[in-house]
Amino acid sequence: MPDISCSWLGDMAFSATVNGHELRIDADSEFGGKDSGPRPKPLIMAALAGCSGMDVVSILKKMREPITWFNMRVEADQSDEHPKTYTAMRIIYEFKAADGLKDENVRKAVDLSLERYCGVAALLKKAIPLSGEIAYL
Amino acid sequence: MPDISCSWLGDMAFSATVNGHELRIDADSEFGGKDSGPRPKPLIMAALAGCSGMDVVSILKKMREPITWFNMRVEADQSDEHPKTYTAMRIIYEFKAADGLKDENVRKAVDLSLERYCGVAALLKKAIPLSGEIAYL
Repeated sequence: MPDISCSWLGDMAFSATVNGHELRIDADSEFGGKDSGPRPKPLIMAALAGCSGMDVVSILKKMREPITWFNMRVEADQSDEHPKTYTAMRIIYEFKAADGLKDENVRKAVDLSLERYCGVAALLKKAIPLSGEIAYL
Repeated sequence: MPDISCSWLGDMAFSATVNGHELRIDADSEFGGKDSGPRPKPLIMAALAGCSGMDVVSILKKMREPITWFNMRVEADQSDEHPKTYTAMRIIYEFKAADGLKDENVRKAVDLSLERYCGVAALLKKAIPLSGEIAYL
């Protein structure tokens, strides 16, 4: 499996190389950074969304569900004291009501991802409570 | 704290918005993607490197250590069965021998990050073994 490298660029800026793609990471001005990239911690939420999202799309396509639009939001609770870390995470899977997806299949796809396939969810669930919700917009 | 959103772009591609920065996530061709961005799971390793790297730089600067170059590599072991997830992680902190940093201070900075300050390390340590090594190149 590919490992990652991450170079310091000065101040609080870093350049990570992930699967050959550059990812800039930086602090905001309050912490000595220049906001030239995202903060590191919420990248965990992006990892969760991307990983579970790929599962859900793959499963719904296998079920021949007519999905045209799909969005996720990830919310986290955070501790007040150092180390400031996530204490719970929620992923809200949003679909278009107009797509006419079968809710039963959508729930099955989400459950299969969170319970069986998503490696990011499997890791996070060992550390904190993780829950999924479904919304039709 | 800021939450994240992540939109499906078709096939296996997603666009996450993290602190106002767009982050493209995609699968490789073997899994129906086009490699238009990194895979989601290794973003966890990038989050760890960025988070701990910011700590280490901040602490070494407070110690007035003359750091000019700093790189990290993160390696992970992964399970063979679904859900394919990380089972252990190592972060290798690389410095330039020519910078003449005091090894005692470098070790203190790394330990403070991994034990006390880094929120990503605190989260991962609840799930899997996490270790840090120091190397002078």
